[in-house]
Amino acid sequence: MVDAQIVREALRKNKVKTENFKGIEYLRFTDDFKDIPRGTALFKDFVVWGYPHIGRIFQLSVGLPEQFNAPVWVEEKVDGYNTRIFLYKDEIYALTRGGYICAFTTDRVREFIKEDFFEENPDLVLCAEVAGPENPYVEESPPYIKEDIAFFVFDIMKKGEQGFLAYREKLKIIEKYGLPHVEIFGRFELTQISDIKRILKKLNDEKKEGVVFKEDSERDKRVKYITSFANINDIRITSLNILGLPADYYTNRLLRLALFIEEEQISKDERLYTEIGKAFLEGIFRACEMVRSEDKVYRTFRCRFNKKENALFFIEQIKHASAHIQIIERRLEKDGKHYLLEFDKVYLNMTGLLGHLLKGGSVID
Amino acid sequence: MVDAQIVREALRKNKVKTENFKGIEYLRFTDDFKDIPRGTALFKDFVVWGYPHIGRIFQLSVGLPEQFNAPVWVEEKVDGYNTRIFLYKDEIYALTRGGYICAFTTDRVREFIKEDFFEENPDLVLCAEVAGPENPYVEESPPYIKEDIAFFVFDIMKKGEQGFLAYREKLKIIEKYGLPHVEIFGRFELTQISDIKRILKKLNDEKKEGVVFKEDSERDKRVKYITSFANINDIRITSLNILGLPADYYTNRLLRLALFIEEEQISKDERLYTEIGKAFLEGIFRACEMVRSEDKVYRTFRCRFNKKENALFFIEQIKHASAHIQIIERRLEKDGKHYLLEFDKVYLNMTGLLGHLLKGGSVID
Repeated sequence: MVDAQIVREALRKNKVKTENFKGIEYLRFTDDFKDIPRGTALFKDFVVWGYPHIGRIFQLSVGLPEQFNAPVWVEEKVDGYNTRIFLYKDEIYALTRGGYICAFTTDRVREFIKEDFFEENPDLVLCAEVAGPENPYVEESPPYIKEDIAFFVFDIMKKGEQGFLAYREKLKIIEKYGLPHVEIFGRFELTQISDIKRILKKLNDEKKEGVVFKEDSERDKRVKYITSFANINDIRITSLNILGLPADYYTNRLLRLALFIEEEQISKDERLYTEIGKAFLEGIFRACEMVRSEDKVYRTFRCRFNKKENALFFIEQIKHASAHIQIIERRLEKDGKHYLLEFDKVYLNMTGLLGHLLKGGSVID
Repeated sequence: MVDAQIVREALRKNKVKTENFKGIEYLRFTDDFKDIPRGTALFKDFVVWGYPHIGRIFQLSVGLPEQFNAPVWVEEKVDGYNTRIFLYKDEIYALTRGGYICAFTTDRVREFIKEDFFEENPDLVLCAEVAGPENPYVEESPPYIKEDIAFFVFDIMKKGEQGFLAYREKLKIIEKYGLPHVEIFGRFELTQISDIKRILKKLNDEKKEGVVFKEDSERDKRVKYITSFANINDIRITSLNILGLPADYYTNRLLRLALFIEEEQISKDERLYTEIGKAFLEGIFRACEMVRSEDKVYRTFRCRFNKKENALFFIEQIKHASAHIQIIERRLEKDGKHYLLEFDKVYLNMTGLLGHLLKGGSVID
């Protein structure tokens, strides 16, 4: 459990907020505080610890021997959003990385995780990535998910405990319950750098995000590495809303790309340069077109619910998520066995500034 | 003059600092405060007002009619650093934009501004750009300055007064005293957009920074516009120290480039895309090489002084200018009629992070 003293201190410092999901009251850590990661959720009888930050290496050949002391398991890093799935009074719920119970993920989780898992393991928490073209958070989607969403379990925690089940135990449970999971490429010695690079080359060609390395040892250390495809794709996808992203979003990705090229000795790859320039500018062009034709810069999201009330609850949840994004509901209607929700995220910074500039406005910078 | 009440308030709020340059005590506004711009300097008997912020337009054809009500003077915007030159007890001094008396600029100013100007006009302040390959602040230099530095007067103020002398008065004074000045392209009606665009096209081809528009009217409104060359060049020059720049430095320039292409209807200019990608990555590659070969990322600056004591004073001044830049003196020696100072700016963020990553370190982002 979490020390009551620390919770009181965190409350005083505004690092914890009270949340309510359909009558379930819980406390949510809105920031890292001491040893407690952001997203940790405190329920009446138990705690679901926040998913820890994972370090990233920028070069494989020096990074792997530097980071690890033992062989590593290599898993696909799926490009979606992180969720933690758990049982509360016989119902299954799903938390976002930030520690909200997500009405969307909670509505859909039972279609992907079979009931018997939580019946037999009420104290376990599944850490999974949710990805797909119809998810309400992430604009990108792995190419192999053709519609809707999918769940990919990658870790298992125990309620109230930090850290994860041992790797082989996780594998056993995934197999026993047929849990959907991220692709596991195997266990590699640290000398097998060229094999690992081959995997990453393949992932890059298949337009996948990257891998997470998990050391096969007591300390279970993790490190991630991202393909150059994913780095450019991040730029391409987000440049529509280039003013809406944190300061170092782009400089980080440019550094990753440069160090990737440096490691792979791709000499003066003009094509890659062109792709980077294009990734930046084409989104801004699209944003200009949008302002001219529709007076706003936005992106449309679609996602499917089983229960209409969850869709309504969800739309209220995200309406308050950001002061810089306006949510406009487009439609909510029965579509096959689901309710289809369609909504726009209007990027207010980009809309405001481009609208001003395209009318001939000036700015002081 | 500046209201004493406001100065007291600014002192209380830490917006004003006491400075001392060789016995001359003055107060310097370190931030904008109420109506007083950053860089305003208060001496015992007079005030030198800070140089005001000038708005920037991103598109000419809509921007000019939107911003101005009367014809505009068009002047070259020289890529250097802004200084204000003034007389204090029979000596000529030069302030930086931030309001420091700059030991370098002060040391050199008499070579460029003839004495008789201040003898006859002790109450005037010359606003000038200092540019050239041997300046200690700006990595870039206009291509037509082949060595050392040059001064370019672009505005004239009166001590103690905000605002500038009228345009024609400025022209008269510049001519009378043979002051070095920025190139003046003429006075244009707002309908002459295509003529103005032709000037900018030429400036772009000549690798110059851009123009400042000054309305020929009582209100003397100013707006600037930057060439696409300069926008890409800014990226090219600074990417060596990509972690050292303010958050929106790059997103701003990308926006400007996109809106330039949008206005000029340059359709899918692959070459421009490639240049942008290259501008970002080549600096980072160079930084990696530097870390590998010399364990640090830096740039060498050279500048010339008349008096050795000014060089020594200057090096002390800049040593305290930034916590993220280490200054290493390389040499200071007589070279012709000047003392040549050579020093490195070591970019500590870039050095630290790249050193860590190239040794295989991981980061959490």
